[in-house]
Amino acid sequence: MTENPSPRLFPIVNADVALFTLDDALRLRVLLIQRANRPDPGGWALPGGLLKPDRDDSLEAAARRVLADKTRVELPYLEQVATFSGPHRDPRGWSVSTLFYALLPADQVPAVAGSKTESIAWVDPEAPGRALGFDHGLMLPRALATLRAKVRDGALPLHLLPSHFTLTELQKASEAILGRPLDKAAFRRQLKSSGDLAAVPDLFVRGAQRPAQVYERAAGYRFGDGHVRNDT
Amino acid sequence: MTENPSPRLFPIVNADVALFTLDDALRLRVLLIQRANRPDPGGWALPGGLLKPDRDDSLEAAARRVLADKTRVELPYLEQVATFSGPHRDPRGWSVSTLFYALLPADQVPAVAGSKTESIAWVDPEAPGRALGFDHGLMLPRALATLRAKVRDGALPLHLLPSHFTLTELQKASEAILGRPLDKAAFRRQLKSSGDLAAVPDLFVRGAQRPAQVYERAAGYRFGDGHVRNDT
Repeated sequence: MTENPSPRLFPIVNADVALFTLDDALRLRVLLIQRANRPDPGGWALPGGLLKPDRDDSLEAAARRVLADKTRVELPYLEQVATFSGPHRDPRGWSVSTLFYALLPADQVPAVAGSKTESIAWVDPEAPGRALGFDHGLMLPRALATLRAKVRDGALPLHLLPSHFTLTELQKASEAILGRPLDKAAFRRQLKSSGDLAAVPDLFVRGAQRPAQVYERAAGYRFGDGHVRNDT
Repeated sequence: MTENPSPRLFPIVNADVALFTLDDALRLRVLLIQRANRPDPGGWALPGGLLKPDRDDSLEAAARRVLADKTRVELPYLEQVATFSGPHRDPRGWSVSTLFYALLPADQVPAVAGSKTESIAWVDPEAPGRALGFDHGLMLPRALATLRAKVRDGALPLHLLPSHFTLTELQKASEAILGRPLDKAAFRRQLKSSGDLAAVPDLFVRGAQRPAQVYERAAGYRFGDGHVRNDT
């Protein structure tokens, strides 16, 4: 790595990403990377890396590049959470890091691989089970709160689900993010006013009582454009 | 200004601030500065400046310093909106700027002065009436949307009001931010459940029908901790 010629004048600029998905039991999970490089080799952290002005057109582009490098996946949805800064958060010097969260469809989890030198782990964002480097222990709850607020304000977490899903799976995904159960009747009533879902013609899966219609994301659906409210 | 020795490796890092207040008619206003320095001398912009790693402990501290330098006021409330970035937003090179919004009590407006070389203007944030430099024309609506969302979610804009105010003035301030009228009975009902206000003993002002109780911020009040909802 090129050393900063003048760390007193030019802070380090990073992009970090909290990549969320659902596991097989539709529980919310976030990706951690075991770092191979300085600083803090062997330590666990959110995936992230230095902005490269000669390669990146924006901090968001840097976040996408870093995550593609580290995980081999392209992200359908990425959103800025907040920017963290200060002289002591990174041992390399005064640093700025813009945190994003991203949503990975559950059926793409197997495609996520560590690099040759870095291990990965999918952990419970509320109980990651290991100390995180830098100030990532502060970042992760902020990312979770931002995702939650979005779902509470009515965003359907379709970018976390596989390409085809049932309404029961959609409700479970919303509940996993919010951390509390939702009323089924009210949830379905709200979905009816949403143009975000499209029924897949003639596709059903066996349900507890009767076959359940299979849905997919409506064309042009974008996380966070929805108007359902989940605060009842 | 020291030139960046390696702009391809180290982006410029800025802090910019949308400083909101209320004018005498309780209309929402935002501060613009007419720049004296490169780039864009003579152009209008939100107040902002370069992060100084040798002086600032965080981007927020940089925002407070910049605003104190440019306006001679200390801010009671400052919050991050988002970070803007890219190779073309600043003619000096690849740059990152973290945008904050801040709230200035209406009775402190006269204390805000330009510097020897820079003029200021208080303008309607929805119709600033002049082109803004950099990408500040994108920043301003984002700052306004963040402030609005906070008030819609129940934050009382007490940091925009003078130290003493009536409930009618508080409602007018909320309406100025939201850009729409609020139902008086519902607004007052919601205020009753709020611990954010303290009646000033024996202090009343003449009202349209009867004397109106004068209030002040409760001790420890912090914008955004409130729980009133204004989305009815």
